[in-house]
Amino acid sequence: MNFPSRVTICECAARDGIQHEVAFVSTHDKVSLIDQFSDAGFKRIEATSFSHPSRVPQFKDAEEVLRLIHRLPGVHYKGTCVNAKAVGRAVAALRDGHGPTEISVVVSASEAHSLVNIGKTHAEVRADLDGIIELAFNGGLRVVGTIATAFGCPFVGAIGLEGVMQWVQFFTERNVGQICLADTTGMGDPLLVERRCAEIRDRFPDLRLIAHFHDTRGRALANVVAALRVGVDHFDSAFGGLGGNPPGIEYSRGETGNVATEDLVAMLTDMGIDTGLELDRLVELAHLVERTIGRQLHGRVARAGLTGDLLPRPVQDGS
Amino acid sequence: MNFPSRVTICECAARDGIQHEVAFVSTHDKVSLIDQFSDAGFKRIEATSFSHPSRVPQFKDAEEVLRLIHRLPGVHYKGTCVNAKAVGRAVAALRDGHGPTEISVVVSASEAHSLVNIGKTHAEVRADLDGIIELAFNGGLRVVGTIATAFGCPFVGAIGLEGVMQWVQFFTERNVGQICLADTTGMGDPLLVERRCAEIRDRFPDLRLIAHFHDTRGRALANVVAALRVGVDHFDSAFGGLGGNPPGIEYSRGETGNVATEDLVAMLTDMGIDTGLELDRLVELAHLVERTIGRQLHGRVARAGLTGDLLPRPVQDGS
Repeated sequence: MNFPSRVTICECAARDGIQHEVAFVSTHDKVSLIDQFSDAGFKRIEATSFSHPSRVPQFKDAEEVLRLIHRLPGVHYKGTCVNAKAVGRAVAALRDGHGPTEISVVVSASEAHSLVNIGKTHAEVRADLDGIIELAFNGGLRVVGTIATAFGCPFVGAIGLEGVMQWVQFFTERNVGQICLADTTGMGDPLLVERRCAEIRDRFPDLRLIAHFHDTRGRALANVVAALRVGVDHFDSAFGGLGGNPPGIEYSRGETGNVATEDLVAMLTDMGIDTGLELDRLVELAHLVERTIGRQLHGRVARAGLTGDLLPRPVQDGS
Repeated sequence: MNFPSRVTICECAARDGIQHEVAFVSTHDKVSLIDQFSDAGFKRIEATSFSHPSRVPQFKDAEEVLRLIHRLPGVHYKGTCVNAKAVGRAVAALRDGHGPTEISVVVSASEAHSLVNIGKTHAEVRADLDGIIELAFNGGLRVVGTIATAFGCPFVGAIGLEGVMQWVQFFTERNVGQICLADTTGMGDPLLVERRCAEIRDRFPDLRLIAHFHDTRGRALANVVAALRVGVDHFDSAFGGLGGNPPGIEYSRGETGNVATEDLVAMLTDMGIDTGLELDRLVELAHLVERTIGRQLHGRVARAGLTGDLLPRPVQDGS
């Protein structure tokens, strides 16, 4: 049992979490969430997406959100970019003094998923990416290469190691030193996760590997532990397990959100792994996210309490 | 990664699952559930409880259920016994040809929980147990010694290794060779579970160790994997994650049911671990349990589908 002593969490509620919410989350609410996340100690926050406003209207306020947040030193504010135009917007925002500090570019290990998600074949994605990465680096942005369906694809099933490794190699050859393996629809299991993460780390030991698990089949925390075992120490999560399907496209059935931040940090804390985050504060934030979204979400400890929250002993009736 | 190649699941929906349901599940429905569980391949089924009918009215039909079920060879039907009177009923039922094949006797690692759960101090429990175990063995029953709050107590918090080990030793000294470690309110974490199970197995290598996790904080599957790693190959679970608090006693807040059978078996199957159970059949049974209880339960794969259930690819619109 050789777990990392410290883990860094990227809070994704403000982007991956709300991306598929039909109701628009006001710019004020987005800014308020992000500012409370940074205030609570998150050093990495997925802040917005530069998707086209007609495709993802939720983030039509991307530039405004980034302009209004209260930035804390040492905190990375990430923007999601699906194409060169999006990176252009991110670079322009940075030039204006209100940019993201890093961006994520998204590919799919599964070509079938790539076609559904961004309408491009693998060859088309590869052809685009050189320009995109160059644009980002020249503009002063750090880049995270996100590999969707890294542990399985809802349309074709199992994804072999080479299906993922080709993209890891592609990114590392272009000096993208942060790779996020996304289990987009919760198809991974702890054995696959441990093997795959170990194989990638063995081949690319200097890479920062980030694991992004969705809890579609209830295994997200088990998958986190599997990744921890082979030294992965960066994880994405979203308060309340927020996240889901794009409207009109069925990626996966059931509740398919991210692993819930408060449940993840509660487990890590109980395991003695430092996250730099205060659990009581996180439970408050989980409730804040629920109020913002307007419904109860899927996190457990926000309801059950932390393991340290002891219950009063019932009075014995002597019987 | 040295997981057991085969795991045995004890299906607990018909006892631990429905124990705290306020509505009475009809004898016919209980019998039907148990028969479908055995038909689906479960070799261990928690069938009923011999608790006093005024205390747990759900099981006032214990003898009748055991008389009406269609028994399959090689299947163990377990009855829960909290005191000598309950064991006496189990033995009498066996003598009449309709008994359980094994019983579980329940102690708590935490004395505070023992007082709440069965109204007895540890000294009182110890004093009773000699007679109870003798009665069971003389009556021809196998015994499972269940240790509640083995990974934490909702009233006092952490439970040290010796708090559990004293009961393991107590049972093994009395030839009870099956011990069930119950995380009654989901307070365990994978590190604690792995250490504790390893320590017990190291000291009592011939023991059959059974792990019984509740999913209160979403960690049940992670805890299963932790136990698997140190060779535990017997697990309790209940369809839909059924289970909860006794009415009027708050043991834990939130959804505090068992780990969901269908989610557990789906994960194990994806990991290549044989359970002898057919996943498609289990999803049907999860829905059957939901219909029987009359509400949607907490299992994930019954909603999300199995990892092998591929989605149709959306038609590309050429854009």
